[in-house]
Amino acid sequence: MIIDQTQFDQRNMSKLIKGAVVPRPIAWVSSIDKNGIQNLAPFSFFTVASMDPITFCISIGAGQSLNHEKDTLSNIRETGEFVINMVGEAQANQMYETSKHFDPEENEFEIASLKTSESKLVSAPRVAGAPVNMECTLDQVIKVGNSHLVLGRLVCYHIKDEILMETDKVNPEKLKPVGRMGGDYTFVNDFYRLPNDAFNK
Amino acid sequence: MIIDQTQFDQRNMSKLIKGAVVPRPIAWVSSIDKNGIQNLAPFSFFTVASMDPITFCISIGAGQSLNHEKDTLSNIRETGEFVINMVGEAQANQMYETSKHFDPEENEFEIASLKTSESKLVSAPRVAGAPVNMECTLDQVIKVGNSHLVLGRLVCYHIKDEILMETDKVNPEKLKPVGRMGGDYTFVNDFYRLPNDAFNK
Repeated sequence: MIIDQTQFDQRNMSKLIKGAVVPRPIAWVSSIDKNGIQNLAPFSFFTVASMDPITFCISIGAGQSLNHEKDTLSNIRETGEFVINMVGEAQANQMYETSKHFDPEENEFEIASLKTSESKLVSAPRVAGAPVNMECTLDQVIKVGNSHLVLGRLVCYHIKDEILMETDKVNPEKLKPVGRMGGDYTFVNDFYRLPNDAFNK
Repeated sequence: MIIDQTQFDQRNMSKLIKGAVVPRPIAWVSSIDKNGIQNLAPFSFFTVASMDPITFCISIGAGQSLNHEKDTLSNIRETGEFVINMVGEAQANQMYETSKHFDPEENEFEIASLKTSESKLVSAPRVAGAPVNMECTLDQVIKVGNSHLVLGRLVCYHIKDEILMETDKVNPEKLKPVGRMGGDYTFVNDFYRLPNDAFNK
Protein backbone atom coordinates (compact mmCIF):
# COMPACT_ATOMS: atom_id res chain seq x y z
CA MET A 1 0.00 0.00 0.00
CA ILE A 2 1.18 3.50 -0.81
CA ILE A 3 -0.06 6.57 1.06
CA ASP A 4 1.16 9.89 -0.25
CA GLN A 5 0.95 13.21 1.57
CA THR A 6 -2.35 14.22 -0.05
CA GLN A 7 -3.97 11.27 1.78
CA PHE A 8 -2.40 11.73 5.22
CA ASP A 9 -5.41 13.57 6.67
CA GLN A 10 -7.80 10.73 5.89
CA ARG A 11 -5.57 8.02 7.36
CA ASN A 12 -4.51 7.33 10.92
CA MET A 13 -0.86 8.03 10.20
CA SER A 14 0.06 8.15 13.87
CA LYS A 15 -0.49 4.38 14.25
CA LEU A 16 1.39 3.64 11.03
CA ILE A 17 4.40 5.66 12.16
CA LYS A 18 4.48 4.39 15.76
CA GLY A 19 4.15 0.82 14.48
CA ALA A 20 6.99 1.18 11.98
CA VAL A 21 9.63 3.12 13.94
CA VAL A 22 10.37 0.24 16.34
CA PRO A 23 11.71 -0.95 18.73
CA ARG A 24 12.10 2.35 20.61
CA PRO A 25 14.10 3.01 23.78
CA ILE A 26 12.20 4.66 26.64
CA ALA A 27 13.41 7.79 28.43
CA TRP A 28 11.68 7.74 31.79
CA VAL A 29 12.14 11.39 32.68
CA SER A 30 12.12 12.72 36.24
CA SER A 31 11.91 16.46 36.85
CA ILE A 32 10.69 18.95 39.45
CA ASP A 33 8.83 22.22 39.12
CA LYS A 34 9.89 25.50 40.75
CA ASN A 35 7.99 24.54 43.91
CA GLY A 36 9.76 21.19 44.15
CA ILE A 37 6.83 19.02 43.04
CA GLN A 38 8.23 15.87 41.45
CA ASN A 39 7.21 14.54 38.07
CA LEU A 40 7.97 11.29 36.24
CA ALA A 41 6.82 10.30 32.74
CA PRO A 42 8.00 8.00 29.92
CA PHE A 43 8.87 9.20 26.39
CA SER A 44 9.77 6.84 23.57
CA PHE A 45 10.62 9.42 20.92
CA PHE A 46 14.10 9.48 22.36
CA THR A 47 17.61 9.12 20.97
CA VAL A 48 21.22 10.26 21.22
CA ALA A 49 21.82 13.60 19.47
CA SER A 50 25.61 13.85 19.86
CA MET A 51 28.46 11.94 21.51
CA ASP A 52 30.72 14.97 22.02
CA PRO A 53 29.43 16.54 24.14
CA ILE A 54 27.04 13.72 25.10
CA THR A 55 23.60 15.12 24.28
CA PHE A 56 20.22 13.39 24.29
CA CYS A 57 17.17 14.28 22.22
CA ILE A 58 13.63 13.72 23.53
CA SER A 59 10.57 14.73 21.53
CA ILE A 60 7.74 15.88 23.77
CA GLY A 61 4.38 16.04 22.06
CA ALA A 62 1.45 18.34 22.74
CA GLY A 63 -0.15 18.21 26.20
CA GLN A 64 -3.75 17.39 27.12
CA SER A 65 -5.01 20.80 26.08
CA LEU A 66 -3.91 23.37 23.55
CA ASN A 67 -2.80 25.97 26.09
CA HIS A 68 -1.09 23.61 28.53
CA GLU A 69 2.18 21.90 27.67
CA LYS A 70 3.26 18.67 29.36
CA ASP A 71 4.53 18.97 32.93
CA THR A 72 7.90 17.45 31.98
CA LEU A 73 8.52 20.18 29.41
CA SER A 74 7.39 22.99 31.75
CA ASN A 75 9.60 21.64 34.53
CA ILE A 76 12.65 21.34 32.31
CA ARG A 77 12.14 24.91 31.10
CA GLU A 78 11.74 26.15 34.70
CA THR A 79 14.72 24.37 36.26
CA GLY A 80 16.96 23.55 33.27
CA GLU A 81 17.51 20.07 34.68
CA PHE A 82 16.14 16.52 34.45
CA VAL A 83 17.10 12.86 34.78
CA ILE A 84 16.64 10.13 32.16
CA ASN A 85 16.03 6.81 33.93
CA MET A 86 16.23 3.63 31.86
CA VAL A 87 13.48 1.06 32.40
CA GLY A 88 14.27 -2.57 33.23
CA GLU A 89 11.72 -5.40 33.38
CA ALA A 90 11.34 -4.90 37.14
CA GLN A 91 10.11 -1.32 36.59
CA ALA A 92 7.87 -2.05 33.58
CA ASN A 93 4.52 -1.90 35.32
CA GLN A 94 5.43 1.18 37.33
CA MET A 95 6.68 2.92 34.19
CA TYR A 96 3.35 2.11 32.57
CA GLU A 97 1.50 3.56 35.57
CA THR A 98 3.37 6.86 35.15
CA SER A 99 2.40 7.05 31.46
CA LYS A 100 -1.18 8.01 32.39
CA HIS A 101 -2.31 11.59 32.66
CA PHE A 102 -2.02 13.21 36.07
CA ASP A 103 -2.48 16.81 37.15
CA PRO A 104 0.66 18.90 37.68
CA GLU A 105 0.35 18.80 41.47
CA GLU A 106 0.33 15.01 41.56
CA ASN A 107 3.58 13.14 42.21
CA GLU A 108 4.00 10.10 39.96
CA PHE A 109 6.69 8.67 42.26
CA GLU A 110 4.06 8.36 45.00
CA ILE A 111 1.33 7.15 42.63
CA ALA A 112 3.54 4.33 41.33
CA SER A 113 5.12 3.59 44.76
CA LEU A 114 8.61 4.35 43.48
CA LYS A 115 11.54 5.22 45.71
CA THR A 116 13.69 8.21 44.79
CA SER A 117 17.44 8.71 45.16
CA GLU A 118 19.12 12.09 45.23
CA SER A 119 20.98 13.13 42.12
CA LYS A 120 24.58 14.26 42.37
CA LEU A 121 24.53 17.35 40.15
CA VAL A 122 20.89 18.21 39.40
CA SER A 123 17.86 18.92 41.57
CA ALA A 124 15.52 16.36 39.98
CA PRO A 125 15.46 12.99 41.80
CA ARG A 126 16.43 9.64 40.29
CA VAL A 127 14.30 6.47 40.18
CA ALA A 128 16.17 4.46 42.81
CA GLY A 129 15.56 1.03 41.28
CA ALA A 130 16.29 1.89 37.65
CA PRO A 131 19.39 0.18 36.18
CA VAL A 132 20.78 3.42 34.68
CA ASN A 133 20.14 7.09 35.55
CA MET A 134 21.52 9.91 33.44
CA GLU A 135 21.51 13.38 34.99
CA CYS A 136 21.12 16.10 32.36
CA THR A 137 21.12 19.85 32.02
CA LEU A 138 19.06 21.57 29.34
CA ASP A 139 20.96 22.59 26.22
CA GLN A 140 18.06 23.85 24.12
CA VAL A 141 14.39 23.34 23.27
CA ILE A 142 13.56 23.32 19.54
CA LYS A 143 9.96 23.55 18.33
CA VAL A 144 9.26 21.08 15.50
CA GLY A 145 5.68 20.87 14.24
CA ASN A 146 3.33 20.21 17.15
CA SER A 147 6.18 18.95 19.37
CA HIS A 148 9.32 20.15 21.11
CA LEU A 149 12.75 18.54 20.91
CA VAL A 150 14.44 18.78 24.29
CA LEU A 151 18.22 18.55 23.92
CA GLY A 152 19.93 17.76 27.21
CA ARG A 153 23.59 17.31 28.06
CA LEU A 154 24.73 14.45 30.24
CA VAL A 155 26.43 15.65 33.44
CA CYS A 156 26.40 12.47 35.53
CA TYR A 157 25.92 8.77 34.68
CA HIS A 158 24.82 6.17 37.25
CA ILE A 159 24.83 2.44 36.55
CA LYS A 160 24.11 -0.46 38.90
CA ASP A 161 27.35 -2.38 39.39
CA GLU A 162 25.76 -5.73 38.52
CA ILE A 163 24.98 -4.71 34.93
CA LEU A 164 28.38 -3.19 34.19
CA MET A 165 30.92 -5.43 32.43
CA GLU A 166 34.64 -4.86 32.46
CA THR A 167 35.70 -2.61 29.58
CA ASP A 168 32.85 -0.20 30.36
CA LYS A 169 30.18 -2.16 28.52
CA VAL A 170 26.58 -2.51 29.64
CA ASN A 171 25.50 -6.16 29.97
CA PRO A 172 22.23 -6.33 27.98
CA GLU A 173 21.18 -9.61 29.61
CA LYS A 174 21.33 -7.98 33.03
CA LEU A 175 19.89 -4.65 31.86
CA LYS A 176 16.74 -6.40 30.52
CA PRO A 177 15.54 -3.22 28.82
CA VAL A 178 11.92 -2.54 27.99
CA GLY A 179 11.30 -1.26 24.47
CA ARG A 180 8.26 0.43 23.00
CA MET A 181 6.42 -0.94 19.97
CA GLY A 182 3.35 0.58 18.27
CA GLY A 183 0.88 -0.07 21.06
CA ASP A 184 2.76 -2.81 22.89
CA TYR A 185 6.06 -3.20 24.66
CA THR A 186 8.87 -5.65 24.06
CA PHE A 187 11.24 -7.17 26.59
CA VAL A 188 14.62 -7.58 24.98
CA ASN A 189 16.17 -10.95 25.76
CA ASP A 190 17.86 -12.12 22.58
CA PHE A 191 20.98 -10.58 21.12
CA TYR A 192 22.80 -11.39 17.94
CA ARG A 193 25.97 -10.45 16.20
CA LEU A 194 25.67 -9.73 12.50
CA PRO A 195 26.21 -11.13 9.92
CA ASN A 196 24.28 -14.19 11.10
CA ASP A 197 23.40 -17.19 8.96
CA ALA A 198 20.08 -17.63 10.77
CA PHE A 199 18.81 -14.55 8.97
CA ASN A 200 19.80 -15.45 5.42
CA LYS A 201 16.39 -16.42 4.23
CA MET B 1 29.04 3.22 39.82
CA ILE B 2 28.79 6.98 39.36
CA ILE B 3 30.68 8.84 36.62
CA ASP B 4 30.36 12.61 36.70
CA GLN B 5 31.29 14.96 33.89
CA THR B 6 34.81 15.60 35.22
CA GLN B 7 35.59 11.92 34.56
CA PHE B 8 34.04 11.59 31.08
CA ASP B 9 37.34 12.03 29.26
CA GLN B 10 38.98 9.11 31.03
CA ARG B 11 36.10 6.72 30.45
CA ASN B 12 34.77 5.16 27.29
CA MET B 13 31.42 6.93 27.58
CA SER B 14 30.40 6.04 24.04
CA LYS B 15 30.00 2.36 24.98
CA LEU B 16 28.13 3.20 28.17
CA ILE B 17 25.66 5.41 26.29
CA LYS B 18 25.11 3.06 23.34
CA GLY B 19 24.61 0.17 25.73
CA ALA B 20 22.05 2.03 27.85
CA VAL B 21 19.89 3.77 25.24
CA VAL B 22 18.37 0.54 23.92
CA PRO B 23 16.66 -1.00 22.01
CA ARG B 24 17.02 1.46 19.12
CA PRO B 25 15.11 1.49 15.82
CA ILE B 26 17.24 1.57 12.66
CA ALA B 27 16.75 4.12 9.88
CA TRP B 28 18.26 2.51 6.79
CA VAL B 29 18.68 5.65 4.73
CA SER B 30 18.88 5.68 0.94
CA SER B 31 19.97 8.82 -0.88
CA ILE B 32 21.64 9.91 -4.11
CA ASP B 33 24.26 12.54 -4.81
CA LYS B 34 23.97 15.24 -7.47
CA ASN B 35 25.45 12.85 -10.06
CA GLY B 36 22.90 10.17 -9.24
CA ILE B 37 25.25 7.83 -7.35
CA GLN B 38 23.20 5.84 -4.86
CA ASN B 39 24.00 5.51 -1.17
CA LEU B 40 22.54 3.36 1.59
CA ALA B 41 23.56 3.35 5.27
CA PRO B 42 21.97 2.49 8.65
CA PHE B 43 21.59 4.97 11.53
CA SER B 44 20.25 3.97 14.94
CA PHE B 45 20.17 7.42 16.53
CA PHE B 46 16.76 7.86 15.00
CA THR B 47 13.32 8.86 16.27
CA VAL B 48 10.09 10.69 15.50
CA ALA B 49 10.41 14.46 16.01
CA SER B 50 6.79 15.48 15.39
CA MET B 51 3.49 13.90 14.37
CA ASP B 52 2.02 17.03 12.77
CA PRO B 53 3.56 17.43 10.30
CA ILE B 54 5.15 13.96 10.45
CA THR B 55 8.85 14.67 10.89
CA PHE B 56 11.70 12.27 11.62
CA CYS B 57 14.97 13.02 13.39
CA ILE B 58 18.21 11.20 12.50
CA SER B 59 21.50 12.04 14.18
CA ILE B 60 24.43 11.64 11.80
CA GLY B 61 27.81 11.54 13.48
CA ALA B 62 31.17 12.68 12.22
CA GLY B 63 32.56 11.02 9.07
CA GLN B 64 35.79 9.09 8.64
CA SER B 65 37.89 12.22 8.56
CA LEU B 66 37.57 15.68 10.05
CA ASN B 67 37.02 17.45 6.74
CA HIS B 68 34.67 14.92 5.15
CA GLU B 69 31.12 14.46 6.37
CA LYS B 70 29.22 11.21 5.80
CA ASP B 71 27.90 10.61 2.29
CA THR B 72 24.31 10.37 3.56
CA LEU B 73 24.47 13.86 5.03
CA SER B 74 26.17 15.36 1.94
CA ASN B 75 23.59 13.74 -0.33
CA ILE B 76 20.64 14.96 1.74
CA ARG B 77 22.05 18.48 1.70
CA GLU B 78 22.59 18.31 -2.09
CA THR B 79 19.22 16.90 -3.08
CA GLY B 80 16.97 17.70 -0.09
CA GLU B 81 15.52 14.19 -0.27
CA PHE B 82 15.99 10.71 1.18
CA VAL B 83 14.15 7.50 2.04
CA ILE B 84 14.03 5.79 5.44
CA ASN B 85 13.73 2.03 4.90
CA MET B 86 12.85 -0.13 7.92
CA VAL B 87 14.87 -3.33 8.38
CA GLY B 88 13.18 -6.72 8.78
CA GLU B 89 14.93 -9.96 9.68
CA ALA B 90 15.27 -10.86 6.01
CA GLN B 91 17.36 -7.71 5.38
CA ALA B 92 19.48 -7.90 8.57
CA ASN B 93 22.69 -9.18 7.02
CA GLN B 94 22.48 -6.84 4.05
CA MET B 95 21.83 -3.89 6.37
CA TYR B 96 24.93 -4.89 8.31
CA GLU B 97 26.95 -5.02 5.09
CA THR B 98 25.97 -1.43 4.30
CA SER B 99 27.12 -0.26 7.74
CA LYS B 100 30.77 -0.58 6.71
CA HIS B 101 32.74 2.32 5.31
CA PHE B 102 32.71 2.72 1.54
CA ASP B 103 33.98 5.53 -0.65
CA PRO B 104 31.42 8.02 -1.99
CA GLU B 105 31.57 6.58 -5.52
CA GLU B 106 30.64 3.09 -4.32
CA ASN B 107 27.01 1.97 -4.47
CA GLU B 108 25.95 0.06 -1.34
CA PHE B 109 22.90 -1.36 -3.15
CA GLU B 110 25.25 -3.20 -5.50
CA ILE B 111 27.71 -4.17 -2.76
CA ALA B 112 24.92 -5.76 -0.68
CA SER B 113 23.06 -7.18 -3.73
CA LEU B 114 19.93 -5.21 -2.94
CA LYS B 115 17.21 -4.44 -5.45
CA THR B 116 15.90 -0.89 -5.67
CA SER B 117 12.38 0.35 -6.36
CA GLU B 118 11.57 3.82 -7.62
CA SER B 119 10.14 6.24 -5.12
CA LYS B 120 6.91 8.07 -5.87
CA LEU B 121 7.82 11.63 -4.82
CA VAL B 122 11.59 11.75 -4.26
CA SER B 123 14.62 10.95 -6.41
CA ALA B 124 16.32 8.56 -3.95
CA PRO B 125 15.47 4.88 -4.53
CA ARG B 126 13.77 2.57 -2.04
CA VAL B 127 15.08 -0.79 -0.78
CA ALA B 128 12.67 -3.05 -2.67
CA GLY B 129 12.48 -5.80 -0.06
CA ALA B 130 12.12 -3.63 3.05
CA PRO B 131 8.76 -3.93 4.86
CA VAL B 132 8.28 -0.15 5.14
CA ASN B 133 9.75 2.74 3.11
CA MET B 134 9.20 6.35 4.10
CA GLU B 135 9.99 8.99 1.48
CA CYS B 136 11.16 12.24 3.07
CA THR B 137 12.08 15.78 2.13
CA LEU B 138 14.62 17.73 4.17
CA ASP B 139 13.15 20.17 6.69
CA GLN B 140 16.37 21.31 8.38
CA VAL B 141 19.83 20.24 9.50
CA ILE B 142 20.79 21.27 13.05
CA LYS B 143 24.38 20.99 14.27
CA VAL B 144 24.58 19.52 17.79
CA GLY B 145 28.04 18.87 19.20
CA ASN B 146 30.03 16.71 16.77
CA SER B 147 26.87 15.53 15.00
CA HIS B 148 24.05 16.81 12.82
CA LEU B 149 20.36 16.26 13.39
CA VAL B 150 18.62 15.75 10.06
CA LEU B 151 14.92 16.60 10.32
CA GLY B 152 12.93 15.20 7.41
CA ARG B 153 9.24 15.39 6.60
CA LEU B 154 7.34 12.34 5.45
CA VAL B 155 5.85 12.78 1.98
CA CYS B 156 5.01 9.18 1.07
CA TYR B 157 4.61 5.98 3.12
CA HIS B 158 4.93 2.49 1.62
CA ILE B 159 4.04 -0.66 3.52
CA LYS B 160 3.93 -4.27 2.31
CA ASP B 161 0.30 -5.39 2.35
CA GLU B 162 1.05 -8.54 4.36
CA ILE B 163 2.21 -6.61 7.44
CA LEU B 164 -0.68 -4.14 7.48
CA MET B 165 -3.61 -4.96 9.77
CA GLU B 166 -7.10 -3.55 9.39
CA THR B 167 -7.44 -0.28 11.30
CA ASP B 168 -4.12 0.94 9.90
CA LYS B 169 -1.94 -0.87 12.40
CA VAL B 170 1.42 -2.44 11.62
CA ASN B 171 1.57 -6.13 12.58
CA PRO B 172 4.77 -6.42 14.64
CA GLU B 173 4.92 -10.22 14.24
CA LYS B 174 5.02 -9.84 10.47
CA LEU B 175 7.28 -6.77 10.52
CA LYS B 176 9.97 -8.69 12.49
CA PRO B 177 11.96 -5.51 13.10
CA VAL B 178 15.69 -5.51 13.81
CA GLY B 179 16.74 -3.31 16.72
CA ARG B 180 20.16 -2.03 17.68
CA MET B 181 21.75 -2.72 21.06
CA GLY B 182 25.16 -1.53 22.30
CA GLY B 183 27.28 -3.66 19.99
CA ASP B 184 24.70 -6.30 19.10
CA TYR B 185 21.34 -6.44 17.42
CA THR B 186 18.04 -7.77 18.67
CA PHE B 187 15.25 -9.41 16.69
CA VAL B 188 11.96 -8.42 18.20
CA ASN B 189 9.60 -11.37 18.53
CA ASP B 190 7.82 -10.96 21.86
CA PHE B 191 5.23 -8.31 22.57
CA TYR B 192 3.42 -7.53 25.77
CA ARG B 193 0.65 -5.32 26.94
CA LEU B 194 1.25 -3.49 30.19
CA PRO B 195 0.51 -3.78 33.05
CA ASN B 196 1.59 -7.42 33.05
CA ASP B 197 1.78 -9.66 36.11
CA ALA B 198 4.80 -11.47 34.69
CA PHE B 199 6.87 -8.39 35.44
CA ASN B 200 5.82 -7.80 39.03
CA LYS B 201 8.92 -9.15 40.64
